[in-house]
This record gives sequence, C-alpha cells and structure tokens, in this order.
Amino acid sequence: MDRSYKIDEWKIIEEGFNPEKNRASESVFSIGNGHMGQRANFEERYSGNSLRGSYIAGIYYPDKTRVGWWKNGYPEYFAKVLNSPNWIGIDVSIDDEQLDLARCEILSFRRELNMKEGTLSRVFSVKMKNGITVEVNTTRFVSLDDHELGAIKYSVKLPDQGARLSFTPFIDGNVVNEDANFGEIFWNESNRSTDNGNALLVTTTRKTNFTVAFASNYAFYRNKKEIITEPVLHSREKYAGHSFEIEARAGVQYTVYKYAAILSSENNPVNKIGHLATIKVQEASSKGFDELLDAHRDAWQKKWDESDIVIKGDPAAQQGIRFNIFQLYQTYTGDDKRLNIGPKGFTGEKYGGSTYWDTEAFAFPFYLMTSDLHVARNLLLYRYRHLGKAIENAEKLGFNNGAALYPMVTINGEECHNEWEITFEEIHRNGAIAYAIYNYIEHTGDSSYLEDYGLEVLIALSRFWRQRVNFSEPKLRYVILGVTGPNEYENNVNNNWYTNKIAWWTMQYTTECIGAVKSAAPAKYKDLVERIEFDEKIEIAEWKEIINNLYFPYDEDRDIFLQQEGYLDKLQQTVDNIKPEERPINQHWSWDRILRSCFIKQADVLQGLYFFGEEYDTETIKRNFDFYEPRTVHESSLSPSIYSIMASRTGRIDKAYELYLRTARLDIDDINKEVKEGLHITSMAGTWLSIVEGFAGLKVKHQKLYINPLIPEAWEMYSFMIRFRNNLLKISINKTKAEVENLSGKRVCINVGGEEKKISAGNTEFFKI
Amino acid sequence: MDRSYKIDEWKIIEEGFNPEKNRASESVFSIGNGHMGQRANFEERYSGNSLRGSYIAGIYYPDKTRVGWWKNGYPEYFAKVLNSPNWIGIDVSIDDEQLDLARCEILSFRRELNMKEGTLSRVFSVKMKNGITVEVNTTRFVSLDDHELGAIKYSVKLPDQGARLSFTPFIDGNVVNEDANFGEIFWNESNRSTDNGNALLVTTTRKTNFTVAFASNYAFYRNKKEIITEPVLHSREKYAGHSFEIEARAGVQYTVYKYAAILSSENNPVNKIGHLATIKVQEASSKGFDELLDAHRDAWQKKWDESDIVIKGDPAAQQGIRFNIFQLYQTYTGDDKRLNIGPKGFTGEKYGGSTYWDTEAFAFPFYLMTSDLHVARNLLLYRYRHLGKAIENAEKLGFNNGAALYPMVTINGEECHNEWEITFEEIHRNGAIAYAIYNYIEHTGDSSYLEDYGLEVLIALSRFWRQRVNFSEPKLRYVILGVTGPNEYENNVNNNWYTNKIAWWTMQYTTECIGAVKSAAPAKYKDLVERIEFDEKIEIAEWKEIINNLYFPYDEDRDIFLQQEGYLDKLQQTVDNIKPEERPINQHWSWDRILRSCFIKQADVLQGLYFFGEEYDTETIKRNFDFYEPRTVHESSLSPSIYSIMASRTGRIDKAYELYLRTARLDIDDINKEVKEGLHITSMAGTWLSIVEGFAGLKVKHQKLYINPLIPEAWEMYSFMIRFRNNLLKISINKTKAEVENLSGKRVCINVGGEEKKISAGNTEFFKI
Repeated sequence: MDRSYKIDEWKIIEEGFNPEKNRASESVFSIGNGHMGQRANFEERYSGNSLRGSYIAGIYYPDKTRVGWWKNGYPEYFAKVLNSPNWIGIDVSIDDEQLDLARCEILSFRRELNMKEGTLSRVFSVKMKNGITVEVNTTRFVSLDDHELGAIKYSVKLPDQGARLSFTPFIDGNVVNEDANFGEIFWNESNRSTDNGNALLVTTTRKTNFTVAFASNYAFYRNKKEIITEPVLHSREKYAGHSFEIEARAGVQYTVYKYAAILSSENNPVNKIGHLATIKVQEASSKGFDELLDAHRDAWQKKWDESDIVIKGDPAAQQGIRFNIFQLYQTYTGDDKRLNIGPKGFTGEKYGGSTYWDTEAFAFPFYLMTSDLHVARNLLLYRYRHLGKAIENAEKLGFNNGAALYPMVTINGEECHNEWEITFEEIHRNGAIAYAIYNYIEHTGDSSYLEDYGLEVLIALSRFWRQRVNFSEPKLRYVILGVTGPNEYENNVNNNWYTNKIAWWTMQYTTECIGAVKSAAPAKYKDLVERIEFDEKIEIAEWKEIINNLYFPYDEDRDIFLQQEGYLDKLQQTVDNIKPEERPINQHWSWDRILRSCFIKQADVLQGLYFFGEEYDTETIKRNFDFYEPRTVHESSLSPSIYSIMASRTGRIDKAYELYLRTARLDIDDINKEVKEGLHITSMAGTWLSIVEGFAGLKVKHQKLYINPLIPEAWEMYSFMIRFRNNLLKISINKTKAEVENLSGKRVCINVGGEEKKISAGNTEFFKI
Repeated sequence: MDRSYKIDEWKIIEEGFNPEKNRASESVFSIGNGHMGQRANFEERYSGNSLRGSYIAGIYYPDKTRVGWWKNGYPEYFAKVLNSPNWIGIDVSIDDEQLDLARCEILSFRRELNMKEGTLSRVFSVKMKNGITVEVNTTRFVSLDDHELGAIKYSVKLPDQGARLSFTPFIDGNVVNEDANFGEIFWNESNRSTDNGNALLVTTTRKTNFTVAFASNYAFYRNKKEIITEPVLHSREKYAGHSFEIEARAGVQYTVYKYAAILSSENNPVNKIGHLATIKVQEASSKGFDELLDAHRDAWQKKWDESDIVIKGDPAAQQGIRFNIFQLYQTYTGDDKRLNIGPKGFTGEKYGGSTYWDTEAFAFPFYLMTSDLHVARNLLLYRYRHLGKAIENAEKLGFNNGAALYPMVTINGEECHNEWEITFEEIHRNGAIAYAIYNYIEHTGDSSYLEDYGLEVLIALSRFWRQRVNFSEPKLRYVILGVTGPNEYENNVNNNWYTNKIAWWTMQYTTECIGAVKSAAPAKYKDLVERIEFDEKIEIAEWKEIINNLYFPYDEDRDIFLQQEGYLDKLQQTVDNIKPEERPINQHWSWDRILRSCFIKQADVLQGLYFFGEEYDTETIKRNFDFYEPRTVHESSLSPSIYSIMASRTGRIDKAYELYLRTARLDIDDINKEVKEGLHITSMAGTWLSIVEGFAGLKVKHQKLYINPLIPEAWEMYSFMIRFRNNLLKISINKTKAEVENLSGKRVCINVGGEEKKISAGNTEFFKI
C-alpha cells in the first residue's frame, strides 16, 4: 500500500513531486465529464515519464490484432478508444528556457483534485537552470454542464526578477496510443486553421472515419487586466497554436486562460463541425473562465446532492467512497445510449475503453440505484442492440439456432479480445447480461422491457447454454467443459461452479420469463416466437432436462462448492504463505505457476453466492467464504468489493471493513501496483455496493426493499441515497438506529432489520438496529 | 489428399504449372545440403504468389516477441533462421520484356526433383506478351560435396524467331522474412563489389552479428561455345549483379552458368570472408558445372549406398520413403555439432528453424541408426551444452536446486516460444531428452557418454520432476497439474498420462544410471556430485517416494489409460463423425471447440506406449490403440508414424500400411493442407521408423538387436540398412523370409522372429517368417 496522497474528505492532494509516481498520479487526478476525459498531464512541456492521455467517448479505432500464434476464431482487430489530440498544451518559456519539471529544481509542488467541484489544480515553484525562480498556479476542468467544453487557467509569477516570458497554447494531433499494436498512427488531419485569436484542428480517425474538431482560443492577463497580444501563428501538420511573449516583471501574476471546444461527429454534422467548434469556443471565452466554472460546479453539486455518501469518523473511508463516486460520474452519465463504461474509463489506454462484463456485474447496479430509470435501461439496450452480433459471434464458434455469445470485450458488438482462454472460454459473461435484466426488473418493476427486449436476449442466451453443455457418461450429468471463470487465474477448467450456476439460473429464469410474458403480453410473445423461430415445447423441455441434471462440483468433507473440478488436487495454501516480495503474484510469478497454484484472483464461487445468496443459508455462505477468502489474492480490482459484501452478509463486519478499504482506496493507495495504467472505474461501483448492499444490507426481494444495517467500528454514521421505483430515499445509519427519509416520490414500504414501515414522500422513519 | 505429382521411384515430378500450388511446390522441390537450403523459387523473376526462401544453417535473428497479452515468463525474442540474400536470381528479358511466368502464356512446364542426384530442374516453354516463344531448361543444386557451393545451369532457346536476349545474374540482400514479427529488416550490408566476372555481397545480421559472404560469377555459352560478355555492372545497396545481352538466333541454345560460394562467419574468419568467397567461387567456375555436379552426385550416391530403403511393388510407397530420407539428409548431416534439426528444415519460415522435442523423439533414432556414432552423440551434446540455460529457464519459472526445464523451442538454449500453454506447460519435452540418452546407450553401448555428460542431464531433469509434482489430498497420490501433452489439442490439463509416465520413467532411469555410474566410474561420479551439490540420499529417496505414489489416470470399464483426467467427460465421437469439409479441424474450428472435443491431434497415450511398450502386453496396447486411433485426426505430422508403428506392433498390418502412406506422402500429397509453409522434416524420420521399427519390428533390448518382420500386402519386398555397434547391416524382407547381411564390422547377434543367429562381417543369414 502506498499512501502518497493526503487524507481529505473532498480532495485528493499530492504534496511534493515524485517523478517515479507521475504516471500513477496522472491516472488518479484524471478529470472527465462522461463524454471526454483527460489524464492529469501537465499543460507545460514535460520530458519526464508520462502517459499523455486525452480520450473522447465513442471514438475508437480497430487496431489490427497482434498475437504470437493465431487461433481460429480470433478477431481481426481490437477496438481502442484513442488517445486524442492534445488540447491542454501550453508551452512556457522564460528567457528562452523551456519550463519543464523534469529539468529544473522543484522548490514546492502541490497537485489537487477537488471532487466537490470537479477541478484539477497545481501550484508549484521551481528554480530553472537559468537561475530564475518561477511560481505557477493552474486549474482546469472539463465541463459537466456542457460536455463539449474544457477550460484552463494558467498563472505564472516570477517572484525574484523580471524576464522574458513566453506562452504557446496549442492543439497537437501528433499523438499515438502507447499500446498501439503495430505503432500505427490513428488520426488524419482533415482541417486546420489559425488566426489571431483562434486555433482549429479537425482530425478524422483512419478506418472508422470519426471526425473530431478541436477549437481553442485564449486570453492573457497581467494581474486582473487583459493584455492584447500579437501572437505568432503556428500551423503545421496536425498542429495549430499561438505564441506570444511579454517582458514580465517580478512579483506580477501573468495568466493565460485557454478555452477548448471539442466536438465529435457522433453529435455534430461533420461538414460544419469545425465552424461549430469555433463558434462554441468563442461563446465560451466570452463567458469567461469563472462563469464556465460556476456552471460546472453547479452541475457537480447536483450530482452530489443525489448521490453523495457521507461517512462520519473515518476520513480515509470518506475520501475513498467520494473518489469512487466522482470517477464513476466522470466516466459515464447515462445520457447517451451509444456509450458504455470501460474498465479504465478515460484514465488510461489499457482495456481499450471497451465494454466488459464489469458493466452488468458491477456498474449496472450502481447506475440502477443512483440514476434515473432511463440510464439503466440504456445500458440494457446497449446489449440488446448487439444481440445480432452476439449470435454471429456464437456462429463463428460453431453454435447455431440463434444462440448468442456476447463478446468479452467490445465497442460495437464485435468481439475484440484475443486470448483463447478468455475470448472463447470466459463465457460466464453471458450470465451477467441475463442477471442485469433480472436485476432491472426486480428494482424497477418495468416489465415492458422484458416483453419488448429482455426475453429475446434471454432466449438467445439459454440457447447458447443448451448447446454448450454436453452429457458426461461417467457422471451421468450434463457438464460444461473448457471454461474460464471469473477467477482468471484458472484457465480451461471443467465445471466451474459459478459458470454452471449462472448457466443453470439463466435457463431457469428464461423459462419463468416466458411464462410471464406469455400471459401478460401474448401478442408480443407470439410475434417473438415467430421472429426467432422459437420451438417452445422442445426448447423448454431441453432446458429443463439440463436444469434437472447439471453437474455442480462439491466437496463433501468441507461441505463447500468447488470452484471447479479438481481444485482440491492443488497444493492447498493460504495467501499468507506467499512471500510479501512476490506480491502481487501476477507481477512476479510465471503464468503456469499462477495457474497451478490454488490462489484465486477474484471472487468466483463467492460471486455466485453474491448473485444467488437467497438460495443458500448463512452457514453455507460462511463455510464457502472461510474456505475461499484466505486463498484469494484480490489481484482483480473486482474482488474485494464482492468479498466485502459477503463478509457483511455473514456478519463479519471487521473483515468487511478491511475489504471495503481495499476496494475504496485501491487506486488512491495503488494497492495492486498498476494505477499508472489507469483507474479501475468499474470496480468503483463495487465499492458503492459494498456500502449499500454490504454494510447497509440493502436488497430487493420480490420487488420489495429490505435493509439489514451494520456499521463498521470506526464509523460514527454513514448515509447514502438510492432510487427505488421513482422514490429517492436517503438512508442514514449510526450505531443505534437507521433513518430513512423519503425525499420524493410515492409512499414506499421498507423493511429494516425485520421491521416494516411505509414512508410517504417528505417523511422520515427511524428504526432501531 | 492432393496427388499432384507423378509417381516415380527416384523423382518428384510436376507436370504443368499451377500458380495456386506454387508455394506448395516451392516447398516440396526444395534443395539443401545440411548447411544451406533453398526453396524451389524460380531463377527468373516471378510476380505471382511465391515464398522466396534461402536459408543458412545456424544464422539466426532474435526477432522481438509479438504477443497479444504478455504473460510473466515469456521470452523477449523468437530466434529465427533468416531468409538470406537471394543468390539464385537470374533476370531474363527478351526484346525488353521481362520473363515472368505470371505474365505469359505457359505452353508447357515441368519441374523435377531428382532425389538420386540431388538436383532441381525445370523445363518450360512459354509465349510472351510480345509474341515470342521461349524455351527454358534449368538445373541447380547446392553441393553435398562442398557445402559452401551452389551452381545453376540456365538455358534459353527461342524456337521460332530471333530476338534480343538479356540476362542479369545477381545477388540480392533486400530480403525479409514474411513472418517477421514487426517487419524488421534483419540484414545489414557490410561489403559489396562487382567487377567484370564477379559479384560479391557480404551481409551481417543485425543484433546477432553473423556475417555471410555471397560471391558469384557466371559463364555464358552459345550452344557449346563460351562467349565472352562485356557486362553492365550493377551495384547498389545490398545488390550486386551483371547484365549482358545478345542478339539471339532462332533455335540456338544460350546458357548461363551461375556459380555461388556462400561462406558464413560460423566457419570462416570474418575479416577475410569476402576474399575467401571470391576465391572459392572462382575455383568452382574453373572446374565448371559438370565437374561440380559429378562430385555432388557422388556424395549423394554414398548417402544412398548406406541408407536407401528399397520397396518393391509399390512405387508410391517407394517414392515416399526416398523423399523422406532425401529431405532428412538435405537438412542435417551431423557433421557440425552446433547445428540441429528444425521441424521445417530449410524449406520454410514456420517454426523459425529452431529445435523442438521432435529432434529427440523422432530425428534422433533415425540418425542413431543410419549414421556414424558421432552424429547421434553430437545431437545429445547439443542439449548438454544447453543444460545451464535449461536450469536458468526453470529458475525463471520458480524452480531451484539445479532443476532443468529445456525450452520448447530454441536455437541457443534459450526459450523462444510464447504461448503459455506450450512454453510453460508442454513440459513432456524434458522426457524425450532423457529418453534419447537411454536410446543412445542401448544402441551404442557407449556408457562413457553417460558418465561424462548424460547423468548430469538426467539428474537435472529428475530434479525438475520432483519439484513439478504435488501431493493431492483427495487422491493421496502425487499429481502433475497444468500440462499440455503431445496432443496439443488439449491445454492445461491435469495428469496427462504420457507426461506422468515419462516423468516417472525419468526418475526411475536416473536412479538406475546413478547406480551404474557410481560403480563404473566412481571418481567421475564423486566429481559430479560435488559439482552439482547432489544429495544422493535425500534426492533419490524423494524420487522413489514419487515413483511409488504417482497418479496415472485410468478407465476401469474400458481397461485403458486415460489421456488425462476427465477425458471421458467429453462427448465421445470418432473422427468419421467430422464433416469432411471441416477437416483439418485446425483450419475450420475455433480453438475452444477443438479443445472441448475428444479429437486428438497426435499420438499421446500411444506415444507413451511406443516409448515404453515393453512394459505392457500386446492386448493392453491393442485396447488403447483401438480406443485412441479412431479419435485421432493426425493433424500433427508426427502422429501417423507412431500410430503406424503401434499398428505393426499389434499386428494390424493394413492399418499400419494406411498410416505409413499418410506419413510417407504427407508432404508430397499435401494431406494436412499446409505444405506451402514448408516440409515436415522431423516427421520424415518417423516415416523411416514406421518401416524399420514398425513393419520390420526392429528393437534393441538389453543391448541386443531384435526384428520381428511384417510386410504390407502391396509390397513384394523391402530392404533397409542400419548401423548397430559399428556394424552396417542390410536387412531385406519379402513375403517368406528375412535376409540379414552384415556388410561391415564384427560378428553380430540378431534375433529375427524368435530365431537367433550370429552373423560375421561379409556374411548373410536367412530367416523364415
């Protein structure tokens, strides 16, 4: 654990500059607005170790697949969200020496992410090689109020002596993805212009032909007074900018305001996009930095008003959950149904900004409970729209009759991943998509979704499972061979309990839903049956045969579910046997050693018990928890949150709290030593769940709301808000009571620790705990 | 099957040109001399589909590893034998039109590989776009008599009309490997010159710094009369050549003789290499084509005199075995201990010319039985020299105490392969290396090898197995988890029977050898024990504990060994259930489907029964054969030969014959539809074994020679030669008797079908069968 940043309830603060940690800080201090994001790269030039990253939602490139040894069925490309032209750049020089924090003496340095307001700022003081001391103060944001705008305030003061001070704000499209498979350049320039005040660069992606216009302009101030500059114009291949200079006086503050409008062809007509961007940036600059910032702050305040979690008595825990919520909303706001949530959001290149099962298993319940119904529905519709591609994908692998296998990784519905053990075998992802439909309907009661879209997906998924099992003669049971479970530290195993469980449940739930839709909306059902050539009698009978005879690995001695067949043949050890210097094992052990060991990357059997805990008694869950948790290295960010919830559900509040801190502060404290690659956005939703479903024990059962609250020792109280059936509820829990406030909506019935009350809008009820 | 070539006992003949099949023919008609090789590319320019390939033994490049997703432990590079400068090129133009078989009408075309003489020739007639008909007759060889020489005779006749005929013989180093991971250029030029008669190009590999000098010169003849030309000299980056032209008359034959000396820094001082190459090529040209060819033919005749297999009554079978023997000697002659045998020899880029377990399991017994003792010893010493690297390799994967894991793929002892399921898990390769030592000592009686080198290797291998097993609580047995067996259509399985068997045997055999060396050479033993810190008491006790308690998967119902745990959970089908259009399945099915199926790529349990058949009765072998063979798709070239031998051993002569034809004619008939990538050189040794160990039933048991002959229905007789303990024996088998002739050496004792006779040198004995 690396507690480099100060504990603060609303801020992340880095004091002192550590170049070794710069890439990590660039991730942690990222800013975004759900439509674009920007790593915390410096505005001024930096020749040290840095991962420049600027990303625009939905703009991707099909990067030609790179593998060592081709396997049949691999996709031709990996769709990657691109590193986009650099719009934050402001080169600064003083007496002709470039300001560069890698090349001067740093006297002081502070980087600060203000989560309440959504701003990134830096204050630093350096002594340059030419002996001049420079103080810089800079703040920037990408607007949550207008998602096409970004603004920067960049102030320089020379405390000791005057000098020639020069600024070059620019837009630079000469960018690459560090992880480009073959070093390809992804962008072409399609337009460029500069005039006295404005710079415009319009770039178009190769192959995919997305166009993005970057317009910027600037204003220059001495203290509070604007100075009219006569800039030198810079215009060259994929680069547009302005230089201007001034004989700066000692002790006077010089400020550049840089405004940027970033318009994508996804939302703007491509033939006018440069023009529209120029107009927009001119409007922005005429409003000015402070007015734009006010609107941005207000938008953030609104988010916080509806989704803040307050924790009293434990600032590290408080900082953790706010950071998680903040980054989730920076990544996805739910207002564009074409978008989804990449595991690293807009904070790094890894995972290519694509959609994984993380969306359904982790992010979905967060948005389902914190946002308007259309947000969760948009996430479901994203997969519905990809159903045809999922059926094609299954066909490529030899399935037929409308069986669907959703891709492991996708932007446009096509599979992008190319490790056979994941791409072809980590098929449990199909289950999470079914589970999200179930979750949505339980929480919202919106059965129209099932009738119009959901059932069609469920049938396609069940058709897949039906074909994916085979009958084992020795076992006289159906088996599912050759899979990778959520625990990716096992590959190509047979009868992964979780996979078998979710396959079983999908066929079961699909059968139930068919009954429900058939009676509630017979015409829609008939239409669907015809459209997908569904043979109700035969297909349901086949599912039932499998439901009744599917094999589940189980250990009698320990009375636990077995992660997979043969798991107990491994040398059984607990995680405390691993030498500390060999952790995380994924950075120290060869892959075969990891596979051969009993160590578990992330919740696997426990993931199943999390989804389907209602079917099992607490003792069963405890036994499995006690067996698997000590073997789990939690090297997936998705692991500690699920274990934390399950620890809460089995009453182990201390363990739950320990795991909560691990998930909540995973990135701030760089626990898995990989935050330099980007943040773990989807696991942040797991953090939220570990409070709401974990400590507070919230669940919806037969469409009714239950909570069963616990509170960690260290906390005085905590509160959170959830949406449930058009209600917005605020739930506060302290050591002795739970308080439920119905902030808006109809009267709602809630069961807290066994006691049931009805609460009308505007009212609050108290429950002893 | 694609029977495109004519059946001929000594030749491969292609009649008519099929551009679709050109890459395949370029492989099949390859020539080589154990030190360099050349695909059957055309001398004249060819703009159609072609894989240019010219390879020099031992000259490799560490091509930066390309993977999709890096796994800890992967090597940094793949060592590849390089495509070398083109020394065969002779551009031809007629009235300024380039001769190019892709751009003219082909009137007739014949390509012929003469295996008796080791020559490649073409005779063709074309009508060019300019209307001129051209007849070409060309022959080339790389000398088996002087492995640094190649020669080409290229004759052109214009039957119908005169025209301006121009030739440009050249050397061109502007070559790439088609399979270069990142399109890197591998060669730098280090010297170049041209003068009136000679061209010299000296090139050096990047990174590895191998230097190769290519010197060529030419002579030009009108009919039988030499013409002195005044060539235009061409000299540019990595290219040296000459052009000359003549007003050709109709009906007259014009011939260019091109000679090339190719000297590598592995065998020549680098500072004089260009000079030496020039001298050598001048000497060659002064001898002339016919004299060089005579010496080359004589060298081949000597090879054939000692290793030919004659089959009467079955020309397709005869052609097959000669092709196999011919290609084996073209690849490796055993006179350079630094060299080894790549699975594709010098006939393609795939597998990089590197060493695989194929060497020990297949090629080794061929050379052991057909060549002088030093050849097999050189092959063993190759691995002995790599022992330190094998120990380092094991350390990278977490092993210690001098445990060795030999690489799956290597040129210099370092692992090159980068698929985790192969690189880290196909560990049975270690066993084949132990088995080759055993085989060598059985055949040669050369126990000094064991004392000086072999035991050290065996102990390091047993140390590996000792650490690689773990104790399974549920089974109360030692298990070997997470392996890939010879059947690479299963990955990451537990308790592969073959792997467990060869691990078990290695520990057993090592223990025996320790006893033998300890008593025969106590001083050497003591020295070894100290050098490798061998704790005899403890280590042997640990091996014995494992030997006594290792788990072997077994099916009681069928009374067969199980390829791996859980194999019977698969849907059991035989190969005839696969749709013909889906074969080979490795070109039609996604990888997961192949893994999930019961279909077997190559002998696995049967490979174990081949090695250790003495331990099992014939009924056991039959049961396993009858279970596994119908499930085997033989999509590894290494498969049919082993199954053919096992079919012979169990008396199924028809099946053995069917499989013999499959291995013998695998490449000629392109059975696995991949010959365009290169020939399957190592499997060719398996073809030889399927006659000698299969039909003839030859084995050495307790250092005595046994044969147990069968003869396929279609054959009148067959004969082969083997070396055994300084004897050269010729064994001929017909329908009624076996004839054993002791061609040279001491008196030898041989047991044929149970009857034992002693035969003195020069004598022949007959045995009824």
